[in-house]
Amino acid sequence: MNWADAAAEYDQKDPLAPCRERFSLPPGVVYLDGNSLGALSHHVPERMRQAVEREWREGLIRSWNDAGWYLAPQRVAAKIAPLIGAAADQVIAADSTTVNLFKVLTAAMEANPARRIVLCERDNFPTDTYLAHEAAKRYGKTVRTVDQDTIEAAIAEAGDDLCTVTLTHVHYKTGRLYDLPRITALVHALGGRIIWDLAHSAGAVPVSLDEARADYAVGCGYKYLNGGPGAPAFAYVRRDHLPAFTTPLVGWHGHAAPFDFSPEWRAHPGIERLLVGTAPMLSMLALEAALEAFEGVSMTELREKSLSLTRLFIAGYDACLARHGFGLATPREDAQRGSQVALTHPDGYAIMQALIERGVIGDFRAPDILRFGFAPLYVSHADVARAVETLDAIMTEGVWQEAKYAQKKAVT
Amino acid sequence: MNWADAAAEYDQKDPLAPCRERFSLPPGVVYLDGNSLGALSHHVPERMRQAVEREWREGLIRSWNDAGWYLAPQRVAAKIAPLIGAAADQVIAADSTTVNLFKVLTAAMEANPARRIVLCERDNFPTDTYLAHEAAKRYGKTVRTVDQDTIEAAIAEAGDDLCTVTLTHVHYKTGRLYDLPRITALVHALGGRIIWDLAHSAGAVPVSLDEARADYAVGCGYKYLNGGPGAPAFAYVRRDHLPAFTTPLVGWHGHAAPFDFSPEWRAHPGIERLLVGTAPMLSMLALEAALEAFEGVSMTELREKSLSLTRLFIAGYDACLARHGFGLATPREDAQRGSQVALTHPDGYAIMQALIERGVIGDFRAPDILRFGFAPLYVSHADVARAVETLDAIMTEGVWQEAKYAQKKAVT
Repeated sequence: MNWADAAAEYDQKDPLAPCRERFSLPPGVVYLDGNSLGALSHHVPERMRQAVEREWREGLIRSWNDAGWYLAPQRVAAKIAPLIGAAADQVIAADSTTVNLFKVLTAAMEANPARRIVLCERDNFPTDTYLAHEAAKRYGKTVRTVDQDTIEAAIAEAGDDLCTVTLTHVHYKTGRLYDLPRITALVHALGGRIIWDLAHSAGAVPVSLDEARADYAVGCGYKYLNGGPGAPAFAYVRRDHLPAFTTPLVGWHGHAAPFDFSPEWRAHPGIERLLVGTAPMLSMLALEAALEAFEGVSMTELREKSLSLTRLFIAGYDACLARHGFGLATPREDAQRGSQVALTHPDGYAIMQALIERGVIGDFRAPDILRFGFAPLYVSHADVARAVETLDAIMTEGVWQEAKYAQKKAVT
Repeated sequence: MNWADAAAEYDQKDPLAPCRERFSLPPGVVYLDGNSLGALSHHVPERMRQAVEREWREGLIRSWNDAGWYLAPQRVAAKIAPLIGAAADQVIAADSTTVNLFKVLTAAMEANPARRIVLCERDNFPTDTYLAHEAAKRYGKTVRTVDQDTIEAAIAEAGDDLCTVTLTHVHYKTGRLYDLPRITALVHALGGRIIWDLAHSAGAVPVSLDEARADYAVGCGYKYLNGGPGAPAFAYVRRDHLPAFTTPLVGWHGHAAPFDFSPEWRAHPGIERLLVGTAPMLSMLALEAALEAFEGVSMTELREKSLSLTRLFIAGYDACLARHGFGLATPREDAQRGSQVALTHPDGYAIMQALIERGVIGDFRAPDILRFGFAPLYVSHADVARAVETLDAIMTEGVWQEAKYAQKKAVT
């Protein structure tokens, strides 16, 4: 059986195939950009109408209590927690991924003033390195930026001067997956702390924060969690780090008793101390509703489906795409792959534009990466087959060379 | 003519009376809590449906460009700018008020490492003082917390050691309005910088940031701007401070070329450098739609209406409420009053609960403040009359003493 024929059969046997019905996908589109913006689940539109037209319009200020707005950051966190292997009292939904990263990064630096080295990966998502450098400057730390393959050696070399390591679990460009328990253990063996950015993990690959005893984590609400454009992010702080958790970014929602309006800062004893200002409630409620799409789905099933999709895409690459000059930037080993596959091509931007015009939506990352994200809740094997066939056709026909595809536009 | 009879006549002559039709207020409710959560404008529900059901569902990732999501922070800022007396290129919509305050506060501290004194008002909204203290600790500054009436003396006393002053333009409890141009000039005369928190000003009282040459400002999207629960906030940085503006809280949306994904931080030359992570787009678009309610309304008209409402409420206080043991916490002088009136009463919590149950919604702030906000776009003089009459009736009947009103609940 060749790779394309296999697709229908895989879909037939896929226990998660019915989950696709939980989403509202535009007809005719193969959507492989759920790693950038997740699709709309059926739970969201009605929830938004209710939030705007009943809770805001009718309830007005009373809805902070009566409609439960006030505890939404905790409720959303409790739904995310099982997806990242965490007990819920260590997770909170708040702000953006970047802002949450700032909180835990400054906390890690403040927790150990004597240790100087902060390790970053050279090609990490840039927000992570911007923050590490800017914070390091202010805290008198030294940032060492190293390649993915030398991270373990760099940890060992830092020795007892290692303050913190900040890594993205699944690489935003290549989809390479770090061994989270292993690296966490290496960092702990030297007395350092680790921050995991789960932007491309949460809702797509199993994460075992509690089991690995990870120190801190942050992640994104709008990718595989499908919370909508710019949905609130989340943060995780290991329970025993909470009492001494400090960051300069504090605000009234993180106070032990916000409605006392006391002029003295007194941090909430729990994970709520990471709350700062008032949460963008419409976006928060959309995320809460979207998370219902994970109801009854185990992370094991999700991972199996995800691997099945990415394996099929790689088989398609071998069979039809490699010959067009594409490179494969994503590891072939299952254990090293998240839920996306990245191809390289010097004309990647134009090729992606032509592909999108034919209804197969991935995205492009400079200088030469074509990203394809496989959201296991709603992407089918048939989608994978169509993506490969369409890309093959575009290359064979050479349509991507048309001038209209050359213009560069901002995409997130 | 007594104060209550005057109400109908005032409404008759009110040029902003038709603006009430731009809002969707629940029947039978007098809403005097727009200083906490603004009412729903008619522009929002349809915009939300379009954003969710067309832009997100159909457009998916493409909507960042095609639906203009990417530039929403700038578009929203351009609508807020005229309301706060600012040219639009110095304003950006982003994050929460607290997070924005953190950015400008750290920027002010970094701009002048040699000057040590940070002045705060003792009774300011607590987020402002929490941040000032936490930042001051890290930057080696000294916070001096002073009373409202001694702020000018404290500025003078700080002399050339004055680094920055952080004040809320309209006090969140008392509604007292600072003389923004005067205090800004006093701070500048000593070479210091000032941060204005406009949470209770924007959309309610005229603000003249550019004319006063204020250094920084932040403000809230969900009070008088009616952006919905937890709507994104805004920040203002005076144009000539932008090139040297630095804060440790940076992120990819503030980069000069975000989609280059360059590992080196290079701040956007403009106000966009204050952007950090991805904006909560549903909440941002709700705010954008809500701001249409200000179309064609001048700040002069808005202020006149606001003063007319608060004057009428104070007249009602004198005529009907003072005798029940209420105090008036808000200045009687127009020039010192924002768009709210605060009464004091030792049983304020229970009284406010009873009042809300009768359909007049204000809020309570510990220990004894009953707040009434008068959003000039949709509150009528008839609303003011009904509020006074209802409060008078509750006190006369003594219903607030029923046990059910005693229980304390969290409200924002």
